[in-house]
Amino acid sequence: MPDGSVREFAAGTSAMDIAKSISEGLARKVLAASVNGEVWDASRPIHNDASLKLLTWDDAEGKSTFWHSSAHLMAEAVQDKYPNAKFWVGPAVDKGFYYDIDLGDAKMSEEDLVHLEKKMNELSKKNSVYTRKEMPKGEAVKYFTEKGDEYKLDLLENLKDGEITFYTQGEFTDLCRGPHIPNTGFIKAIKLTSIAGAYWKGNENNKQLTRIYGVTFPNQKELDEYLAMLEEAKKRDHRKLGKELSIFTMDDDVGQGLPLWMPNGTIIIEELEKLAKETEMAAGYKRVVTPHIAKESMYLTSGHLPYYAESMFPPMEMDGTKYYLKAMNCPHHHKIFDAEPKTYKDLPYRIAEYGTCYRYEQSGELFGLMRVRCLHMNDAHIYCNREQFADEFRAVNEMYIKYFKIFGIDKYVMRLSLHEPTKLGQKYVNEPELWKETESMVRQVLIESNIPYIEVQDEAAFYGPKIDVQIWSAIGREFTLATNQVDFNSGNKFKLSYTTQNNSTDVPLIIHRAPLGTHERFIGFLLEHYAGKFPAWLAPLQVKILPISDKFMDYANSILQKLKKADIRAEIDDRSEKIGKKIRDTEMAKVPYMLVVGEKEMNEGKVAVRRQGKGDIGTKDVQEFVAELAEEIKERRGEVAEVKAV
Amino acid sequence: MPDGSVREFAAGTSAMDIAKSISEGLARKVLAASVNGEVWDASRPIHNDASLKLLTWDDAEGKSTFWHSSAHLMAEAVQDKYPNAKFWVGPAVDKGFYYDIDLGDAKMSEEDLVHLEKKMNELSKKNSVYTRKEMPKGEAVKYFTEKGDEYKLDLLENLKDGEITFYTQGEFTDLCRGPHIPNTGFIKAIKLTSIAGAYWKGNENNKQLTRIYGVTFPNQKELDEYLAMLEEAKKRDHRKLGKELSIFTMDDDVGQGLPLWMPNGTIIIEELEKLAKETEMAAGYKRVVTPHIAKESMYLTSGHLPYYAESMFPPMEMDGTKYYLKAMNCPHHHKIFDAEPKTYKDLPYRIAEYGTCYRYEQSGELFGLMRVRCLHMNDAHIYCNREQFADEFRAVNEMYIKYFKIFGIDKYVMRLSLHEPTKLGQKYVNEPELWKETESMVRQVLIESNIPYIEVQDEAAFYGPKIDVQIWSAIGREFTLATNQVDFNSGNKFKLSYTTQNNSTDVPLIIHRAPLGTHERFIGFLLEHYAGKFPAWLAPLQVKILPISDKFMDYANSILQKLKKADIRAEIDDRSEKIGKKIRDTEMAKVPYMLVVGEKEMNEGKVAVRRQGKGDIGTKDVQEFVAELAEEIKERRGEVAEVKAV
Repeated sequence: MPDGSVREFAAGTSAMDIAKSISEGLARKVLAASVNGEVWDASRPIHNDASLKLLTWDDAEGKSTFWHSSAHLMAEAVQDKYPNAKFWVGPAVDKGFYYDIDLGDAKMSEEDLVHLEKKMNELSKKNSVYTRKEMPKGEAVKYFTEKGDEYKLDLLENLKDGEITFYTQGEFTDLCRGPHIPNTGFIKAIKLTSIAGAYWKGNENNKQLTRIYGVTFPNQKELDEYLAMLEEAKKRDHRKLGKELSIFTMDDDVGQGLPLWMPNGTIIIEELEKLAKETEMAAGYKRVVTPHIAKESMYLTSGHLPYYAESMFPPMEMDGTKYYLKAMNCPHHHKIFDAEPKTYKDLPYRIAEYGTCYRYEQSGELFGLMRVRCLHMNDAHIYCNREQFADEFRAVNEMYIKYFKIFGIDKYVMRLSLHEPTKLGQKYVNEPELWKETESMVRQVLIESNIPYIEVQDEAAFYGPKIDVQIWSAIGREFTLATNQVDFNSGNKFKLSYTTQNNSTDVPLIIHRAPLGTHERFIGFLLEHYAGKFPAWLAPLQVKILPISDKFMDYANSILQKLKKADIRAEIDDRSEKIGKKIRDTEMAKVPYMLVVGEKEMNEGKVAVRRQGKGDIGTKDVQEFVAELAEEIKERRGEVAEVKAV
Repeated sequence: MPDGSVREFAAGTSAMDIAKSISEGLARKVLAASVNGEVWDASRPIHNDASLKLLTWDDAEGKSTFWHSSAHLMAEAVQDKYPNAKFWVGPAVDKGFYYDIDLGDAKMSEEDLVHLEKKMNELSKKNSVYTRKEMPKGEAVKYFTEKGDEYKLDLLENLKDGEITFYTQGEFTDLCRGPHIPNTGFIKAIKLTSIAGAYWKGNENNKQLTRIYGVTFPNQKELDEYLAMLEEAKKRDHRKLGKELSIFTMDDDVGQGLPLWMPNGTIIIEELEKLAKETEMAAGYKRVVTPHIAKESMYLTSGHLPYYAESMFPPMEMDGTKYYLKAMNCPHHHKIFDAEPKTYKDLPYRIAEYGTCYRYEQSGELFGLMRVRCLHMNDAHIYCNREQFADEFRAVNEMYIKYFKIFGIDKYVMRLSLHEPTKLGQKYVNEPELWKETESMVRQVLIESNIPYIEVQDEAAFYGPKIDVQIWSAIGREFTLATNQVDFNSGNKFKLSYTTQNNSTDVPLIIHRAPLGTHERFIGFLLEHYAGKFPAWLAPLQVKILPISDKFMDYANSILQKLKKADIRAEIDDRSEKIGKKIRDTEMAKVPYMLVVGEKEMNEGKVAVRRQGKGDIGTKDVQEFVAELAEEIKERRGEVAEVKAV
């Protein structure tokens, strides 16, 4: 058991039996079980000694089992309406599930989803049990041949005899590896979210299947919350806000996935870079600038060619060699480390660059700022020795936390990816001692720093353990932000070395880190997180001065000069509009502060201050307002809480 | 005559005759003459009415004639020593001349240059006249066929009968268009500077010829000054200083012409960018960020493809189209202008970006930071209407001058390149009115601003007049820094428009400008200009604290903290070395300020200040020093005069 206790049961006892033996309440929650690290049906008999973990909705594997079973439930509903439908695959995804279906000549539209949902609700109430059946390959082939189901026959081709299982619930049977939840009754809240075309096996020369996406929950409340979050996310869609606020634009002649940053977006970029530079400078980093291209030979050394070639842009053939756009900055940084001899006194050597990388993504995968081909990375590499490693790694994690505080990111988890000892020398560099050492150092740092984290086996990078950072926006959507990686391999590959205190040479450990991720993804996240209502320090325009009439333009101008002198980004609304309209327009443009000036304000040398989203916050002396705002900007104060309530 | 006067002479009078008629002194200086805009031998008879300008050493054409004649003189000396030598071409270049020669089996080394120089001096003293002879093509072909000179026969192929001339001085005769100086006696000071291999016609499949470079002057003093300047330039070679001061590095695996900027170089880059951003912000520019690539279609619209294809990197084939690295930022900026509708209120719309462009240069042309393939450009584009144009153009010129002052650039010339009316519709956009208008506006701006400039006919850009800016470094070497161009064509090509005050639409005029040129060339220039002794605001390390012994480390540290708090880049020399060595090393590293601290300084809370190149400048209170230096940095004070004296 996960708590370390050992319990004995008769052979053939199922996880569900064990759950029941603990409590009926627990049993009602058990969706599946992890048996010796493999996810099983909770009802599947266990015949040997096993380490067991009961999986519920709180576990990632519990959720994915739930959603995969929901895909089967949906398939049952589809089969009911379209008896000739043929089914390809129906996996769980990040949030929910889908199924790719060949509907033959039938067509389906968004409206049909409502009908399907209704049918699924009916079927779920039947509490149909998901039953597992092993089947010899020959028999399975015969079954699908008679059924005329070329899709499942195709799947069978890649399966070995002895590992073929079928699952049935109600009227629906599917070739499926499982596992599944106990019965359909667990699925209490259902939403089919969209319908799309999907080429069979992702190949556009193949037939287009119908892909139906859905999401389900064990209770209505969670579904409602999820749908509300989606609704809010739609309002905060970074593509919509990005256009409204003139943050970025895309252009067909430039190319897909290649945002052009307009003046407003560039201000945000520059504020983020300023933050990064200040933070990194204080942390002892030095900055470098490297070209966006390099020769094939460098990427052969790094191993990116051929292993990472698919994610790189195609080469440019020149002077008898191939040049590649860089997909990461590390090799260039290694070359800078190597440009001059280093001694132990130079370590830790920390070099940072907002390097622009280019990565190839299928055009169908591109999505606003979230999936792009051009990435401005908040990148840095730290070259250190083993004694320095823990401190350096801790400092990097603390930098993450510092940033989270600035941006009001309350919820985050670090996902520590570890190696798998049986795969040393294949999937992982064969340095068993270094793996143990660095993994335990990294774990220790996380524990000591009180950082919420989870561990994942067998997901490390080739060259060392890594941390993926997940953050949640103000409306509860999850984003993968950035990574923090240990690398004990590139130093050897690039023949990097330094002279030790004993006058011998050693190879440095390398930390790859990018706390702010890329401008693209981070600004996309911030647009949603703040709903476009950036805190003053990030807002492209910080203050708008609204003269009640032209009479007060001179006074407005004198205020503008004071603001500009304090490096505050300000403008005057000099249109001949009523003050009410000026206020509404400025509110819509999400400018943090409005200064309304009329007769009274002018005579008293004051301004009537309005805060975005809060309305009138009183009259202030001009200098007092300027000083207070300058302080708010300098301290990078933000108000996400307020935004959350929107 | 250039002064506007008209004088009459008999037909057949030569420019030299006319010079003599004015004064013997003038005649002694006349090297050639500009006759109706064509450069002629001063001795060539003029048969028709002509506008005449006598050319002396003070004129660019006078110099180039002088150097071309020097190439012939060198050829005569070569022929004397190598009677079988065959001569290809021997043009004047920027500073001096060269001749490409096929020496047959003979070899030549640097030492032989001394002998050649001696021979040239002998020959020059003979005052041999350069005599011109027209020759029918048949006769010329016969002459060189008999001589067995395949090089001159090759040149003859491209010449028309009736335009073939020979020049002879002393024992040497050459096929040559001319013109030449009156006689060899004018060449009084001679230096052959180097010898190199050069493929015939620049094609590496052809035979390699011997190229001899030289430079000559009308007096020894100028040659001595020039050689002293070369000597100083060698000491200040930006590649040498760039390495010594860890400014940049190159790496074979990254590629030729692609500098990697090390931490010290990056500080200079960031200071320059900060200066540009501040200056541009104050001048009403907004900043943008654009990708480094774009699709073929954009460069077909701009016309860079196919016309500029040779200077672009080869394409990346992706998703069925071609992507190119940008060789300039303008098309991307046009797309940003076009991303949202514009009205007259948005103009002038000024957008700036330190955009990184990539241009293909032959690998043989690459040279340190001066000729690279990766260019970080201080770029901006101004979209305005005709009424705004003159003010905008003036403001750009003033920005140049402002920068020159900051960097202590005392000598500069703007080279105004104009169109040639007979080539409208071919070499130049067919907008005769706009050409006249903008050229006269630009000229007017230059005159009003009192900026030294020269006009050059028939060298404008395709789309409008342009200014090339030439500057001279502290040691008198000339650099082409940047351009300022008018563009009335791209607006149409990219279908850019704005709504006018009358609610009609119009196409904006565009100004392309880059006052600081590229980081690459400008930092290369600055390295030479300052001899690596950067003013404090640009220096990678601004202060080095030198404790006399370890006893004063705490005090040194307290000073370091005060400096850091004032954003001053400082370090402590914590080595256990004698103070003399510490001072010498810091002096070598060209750190502007050294603070020596020992018993006395610690007890009094002071520092003993040493200024780079000046030595001890007295003892100061710590806070006083910090405040004074912070002010010096803020004001970007520099001391080029001092550097000049080095």
